[in-house]
Amino acid sequence: MDLDYPTPYAIRRQRVAREMQEQGVSILLLEDAEHLRDSSLRYLSGHPQDALLFLRSDGHSLLVPWDVHLANLYARVDEILPYNQFDRLLPQAVLGVLKHWGFNPSESFSIELVGQEPYVAVVELEQNLKREFPNGKILCRREGIHSYLEECRQIKSEEELTLLEKATNITNEILHSLEVLLSEERAISETEVALFIEIEARKRGAEGTSFQTIVAGPTRSFAIHAYPTFGSGLFKDPETPGLSIVDFGIFYEGYTSDVTFTLASGTLTARRRFLIDLVEEGYQKALSLCKPGMASWEIAEAVQDFFSRHSLTMPHSLGHGIGLEVHERPFFRVKKNGGAVLSPGMVVTIEPGLYEEGTGGVRLENDLLITETGHRVLTEARILYT
Amino acid sequence: MDLDYPTPYAIRRQRVAREMQEQGVSILLLEDAEHLRDSSLRYLSGHPQDALLFLRSDGHSLLVPWDVHLANLYARVDEILPYNQFDRLLPQAVLGVLKHWGFNPSESFSIELVGQEPYVAVVELEQNLKREFPNGKILCRREGIHSYLEECRQIKSEEELTLLEKATNITNEILHSLEVLLSEERAISETEVALFIEIEARKRGAEGTSFQTIVAGPTRSFAIHAYPTFGSGLFKDPETPGLSIVDFGIFYEGYTSDVTFTLASGTLTARRRFLIDLVEEGYQKALSLCKPGMASWEIAEAVQDFFSRHSLTMPHSLGHGIGLEVHERPFFRVKKNGGAVLSPGMVVTIEPGLYEEGTGGVRLENDLLITETGHRVLTEARILYT
Repeated sequence: MDLDYPTPYAIRRQRVAREMQEQGVSILLLEDAEHLRDSSLRYLSGHPQDALLFLRSDGHSLLVPWDVHLANLYARVDEILPYNQFDRLLPQAVLGVLKHWGFNPSESFSIELVGQEPYVAVVELEQNLKREFPNGKILCRREGIHSYLEECRQIKSEEELTLLEKATNITNEILHSLEVLLSEERAISETEVALFIEIEARKRGAEGTSFQTIVAGPTRSFAIHAYPTFGSGLFKDPETPGLSIVDFGIFYEGYTSDVTFTLASGTLTARRRFLIDLVEEGYQKALSLCKPGMASWEIAEAVQDFFSRHSLTMPHSLGHGIGLEVHERPFFRVKKNGGAVLSPGMVVTIEPGLYEEGTGGVRLENDLLITETGHRVLTEARILYT
Repeated sequence: MDLDYPTPYAIRRQRVAREMQEQGVSILLLEDAEHLRDSSLRYLSGHPQDALLFLRSDGHSLLVPWDVHLANLYARVDEILPYNQFDRLLPQAVLGVLKHWGFNPSESFSIELVGQEPYVAVVELEQNLKREFPNGKILCRREGIHSYLEECRQIKSEEELTLLEKATNITNEILHSLEVLLSEERAISETEVALFIEIEARKRGAEGTSFQTIVAGPTRSFAIHAYPTFGSGLFKDPETPGLSIVDFGIFYEGYTSDVTFTLASGTLTARRRFLIDLVEEGYQKALSLCKPGMASWEIAEAVQDFFSRHSLTMPHSLGHGIGLEVHERPFFRVKKNGGAVLSPGMVVTIEPGLYEEGTGGVRLENDLLITETGHRVLTEARILYT
């Protein structure tokens, strides 16, 4: 585990440890599990998933993975203890690690858990802790280290930007291949499009798609997130004009892209033309505002106001940060809920969309890097016509 | 929304409402969101995902979906209100629904949230509620209605069994096609196997695979859950003997299968032969114990004891229930953590596995229905040799 130079993970942990000292937090505990994904664990350890990470305010790190073999391959931490050793129970692991570290029963300390941890788990842990370490305190809050970590993750480092550029480049290659596929004069099913994306992604070295690819033909594109995400129905049908949506992203070494395009088939009705024009105008409006100093909620409000003037509502946020997660800060919502003032180094998506039963849906989504002077669009999704 | 006959959802809600009356719970609140999946929402409403469900103890139900169009297609509830109306914020939605239902500010009532709800969300909701409904109480606990619901879901109804049988039948067809594919005298990549499963599943009317298919060739099978789950490396290589693992499941109308098989390639070393024999013996031992009246933890302990006699540890549970979720009660763990005494109508998987760096991994998993007299094995995964 010892390396001659500090890994990016060690550098990040040092930064978080300093913040812990300032906030008076002794131990930070992150959990990533099937029902509780937390990419900050990977951000701070290199280990991809299914583990607990304990970080002390002196910078010392200890990983408790489900799979020790995998941890030996991926984790860049000071210590590894198998979760099995604690019967894969959170309170047992916490008490075990405290003893392993030589904490004495009367010691005063605080353990911060991230705010997404289930209510009952926090309560149980608190009860267990009190029995053996009566002066130990559990913190679980929306602000605190959890929030600080999410803020850190908003601004991408150079190595992160390299991975995100790789992910978006692969995404662009897939988008171009898709344009060729969709220009073929034949009916094409949703499943064919989705599996084409999967194959093209893997061929190019992606770890896979980063969420269930959405491929919704004209009869299903009115849903924000079609369910099921794709099926045996037609995505492109030369016989049936209408609007179809593809929304996908790919993972490259943990980092994701996220793009959406709409395919308009056949002669468009006036209403469909109208929705497309509005979405494109909303998209351009958003882009013109994406620069350092602008608040994400101001941009979201500007686009929603524009749609409102045409009596339309966008039923989802205008965009979101991307990185180790498909949806992370900053969020582009009307409320100041996870919003941020844009800064250089943020990577975000802008994805205006409008949906109507009968008419269908239109969404356009690309990934942007916020730069010193404005932004750079990293991906090349666009409205396609056939 | 009104139907002439009660839907399965309405029948389930009536049952839960009776339990709420007994436990003195006024309102049950379920949430299914990107970071908090809860299939009980679908179980009680028919709506697949991304919504809040409010259930009153008089049986009245109200869905607050992200996507109203989708809800109009899927939800079988008494009322639908768009989440947008509440700015997609949980406390706002709760207060809004209480007012919509005509609760007066001094009314005494209790709202139970499921125990997986994030700690900070519960605390925030509590604070918001107190301001407008000082006599309203939030309950969030491991037992209570949440636990009752999970217990209900353990025993499958006839319509659920029909869907599970359909899912397992499709799975068997895919397993047979895979055996044909893998009998081909050539190198086969992990990606080819994974996409083959995806295509075969969709072709047969499945909603898709129910988790990221794991296809791990001889160099990666030592991990419980290989990361990434599949890649461009070889799954079957006529040049390299060893152990490879495939673990997949498919969704049919919301219900999942879950199977794993191991492919043993080439002449086996004594150690590999030994691991295979142990896993097969452990599997048979588990099956012989799977009958009504046996506790899931007793079966898990029996198999672990058997492995321990050979100085080996299984780093995961022996099995788990399946239904609307890939992992649900009853769990087959050493501890009484989510375990249950087996009863007719439960559908579970048994999946012993052993893993060693260098040697590789062996896992065998099939789905079983617990019957009045014992069990019926629904799927046909087996150790393959090539």
